[in-house]
Amino acid sequence: MNVTLRGRTRAYRTVTFDSETNSVVLIEQRLLPHDFVLVKTRNFHETARAIRDMVVRGAGALGATAAYGFAQGARAFKGSSLEKFQLHIDEVFQVLKSARPTAVDPVNAMVQVKTAMGAGESVAEKQALALAAAEEFAEEDVRHCRDIGRHGAKLIRNGMNVLTHCNAGWLAFVDIGSATAPMYAAQAQGKRFHVYCDETRPRSQGATLTAWELAQQGISHQVIADNAAGLLMQRGKIDLVIVGSDRTLGRTGEVANKIGTYTKALLAHRHNIPFYVAIPLSTIDWDLRSGKEIPIEERDESEVLGAWGSTNRSRRLYVRVANPSSSAFNPGFDVTPAELITGIITPIGIFKPSQLWKNRQRPGWK
Amino acid sequence: MNVTLRGRTRAYRTVTFDSETNSVVLIEQRLLPHDFVLVKTRNFHETARAIRDMVVRGAGALGATAAYGFAQGARAFKGSSLEKFQLHIDEVFQVLKSARPTAVDPVNAMVQVKTAMGAGESVAEKQALALAAAEEFAEEDVRHCRDIGRHGAKLIRNGMNVLTHCNAGWLAFVDIGSATAPMYAAQAQGKRFHVYCDETRPRSQGATLTAWELAQQGISHQVIADNAAGLLMQRGKIDLVIVGSDRTLGRTGEVANKIGTYTKALLAHRHNIPFYVAIPLSTIDWDLRSGKEIPIEERDESEVLGAWGSTNRSRRLYVRVANPSSSAFNPGFDVTPAELITGIITPIGIFKPSQLWKNRQRPGWK
Repeated sequence: MNVTLRGRTRAYRTVTFDSETNSVVLIEQRLLPHDFVLVKTRNFHETARAIRDMVVRGAGALGATAAYGFAQGARAFKGSSLEKFQLHIDEVFQVLKSARPTAVDPVNAMVQVKTAMGAGESVAEKQALALAAAEEFAEEDVRHCRDIGRHGAKLIRNGMNVLTHCNAGWLAFVDIGSATAPMYAAQAQGKRFHVYCDETRPRSQGATLTAWELAQQGISHQVIADNAAGLLMQRGKIDLVIVGSDRTLGRTGEVANKIGTYTKALLAHRHNIPFYVAIPLSTIDWDLRSGKEIPIEERDESEVLGAWGSTNRSRRLYVRVANPSSSAFNPGFDVTPAELITGIITPIGIFKPSQLWKNRQRPGWK
Repeated sequence: MNVTLRGRTRAYRTVTFDSETNSVVLIEQRLLPHDFVLVKTRNFHETARAIRDMVVRGAGALGATAAYGFAQGARAFKGSSLEKFQLHIDEVFQVLKSARPTAVDPVNAMVQVKTAMGAGESVAEKQALALAAAEEFAEEDVRHCRDIGRHGAKLIRNGMNVLTHCNAGWLAFVDIGSATAPMYAAQAQGKRFHVYCDETRPRSQGATLTAWELAQQGISHQVIADNAAGLLMQRGKIDLVIVGSDRTLGRTGEVANKIGTYTKALLAHRHNIPFYVAIPLSTIDWDLRSGKEIPIEERDESEVLGAWGSTNRSRRLYVRVANPSSSAFNPGFDVTPAELITGIITPIGIFKPSQLWKNRQRPGWK
């Protein structure tokens, strides 16, 4: 998507690959929204560190980074011994996998690259196939997001007020994003609308990343406290809610997403406001039988007890907000029941949550 | 309530009067939770400034401060001319009233003091009556909170998890508080329970003031993001919700309170968790016919776009969290419909919202 720096607008992807220098190029997300900086990782160890240290985050973006990092590692191998090459790429795989042990996307992405490499007969062939597969993984991520946008844009009408939670934007994918895709597509169709971005405490991804994205694309928006959505709905100020998802259960239609999503869905349901979840197909979990089985990550309490921001003197500073002697409880996700969800926007169309399982054999569905 | 400073525990009220120096003594709430400091206002102009600059906040505490400030102003008058005295106290009234023009409590409190002064025949008598009336106002505030605690403590059972929102604690009154009163009373009865304090963005009164209060009283508690209550209720971790109110409609039972209250009530309703509102009787508005008539204050967007906290170098620092080029919408209150409220805890008992109007003629009710 577009980024304007010193008056000059250029399109950027969250993750790309520079084959000449064998580097992965990432938007340094920890500096946003205060600074826009691209970083290049020169080898797979640096790429693993970027994943671990959250230079990059979000399902699609993590997958593409791991795919590129895996190809990067494969291409760095010198020699023609297939046996030694195999040992080398096993190490690359492990290093990149262990950078974020609980994330499933890096592993799935690397398996895809590894499978493609199998067709190569020499080290050089395998190296070329690895890069091609990583590029294809990234392109597929972009295509899926574009398709989500195409289907979802129909939901956005002129003059609407749209609410979103957290960041399921292009910074979480290679480009375009999931929850933001319908907005960007509707904008391209000339529709005018306003977006309310939930601040999304404790990590404030709505106030930082989503607001920054929308500002870069010139989409009218305002940040609101997570507490404010109820009043806005009471007063008829929200027409549509679109959020992303970390895991959607194919069997039940339940949606695990950033903490607070369930609350917005419940409010929307009460006020008869359509509530949509935009997801790439890779987000669907076909195995689990109940949302209660989804493990809820408990994150560090410092996130709740304070905030990161900038001052005139410092670009990134942590302040302690809460009472110094108090502790916090900080669950990262919640689960929204299917009955509160109007529809699930996927690259192959919009489905009711209950239709996912029936349609699981559809072509393109996986 | 108790405050422990350098290992020494002492009881403090939010607002008291030092008749020897004719000063109002206030807890400097803007420094909490990082510093506990008492300030003395030496004349009614300083008291007005303390009200305006939010050294003191909360309905009961503001009322008592204005009552004491009015007596302070009356007592500062030199001479015996009743005519000049009248002109003087009219000025005191106006100065204190205009310190927080939208607040109704300072005015009601001063009218009460003024009425009591009417019985005096000399300046000296009127001055003595003014102080006695201000003291009575403060004592009545404490009695009401104690009575709220007596009734509300019955709702808290051993081992319960209680959720509260914002700060309707002793810092918002002269002592004890409204939403916190049942907790303090239950603690005094030897009950053990745990309190989850909603952070309460954007001003974080839950994370700062309520968490500080509960820590001082030794009540087990944790801060949670405003987004987290839904998950906690899904997982059976909340047994009871108690909040305060800025205005409760006697005709409809609707409750205006800090932004986000409505959301917690809706969540509690869905999960069959009792949701109570604790209020002194002065909070009841017998005139308005619908919650839609309640004006919703829109506050400065900087509250949503950043946060106040402390660092090693600074006790009170503002950091900008949100994207620098984005704006925010910042409503201060929302309105919870009566159907979501289990009961209203008042100094004279617990009522269903629909029972307020029927009982409006009860003795002690006004």
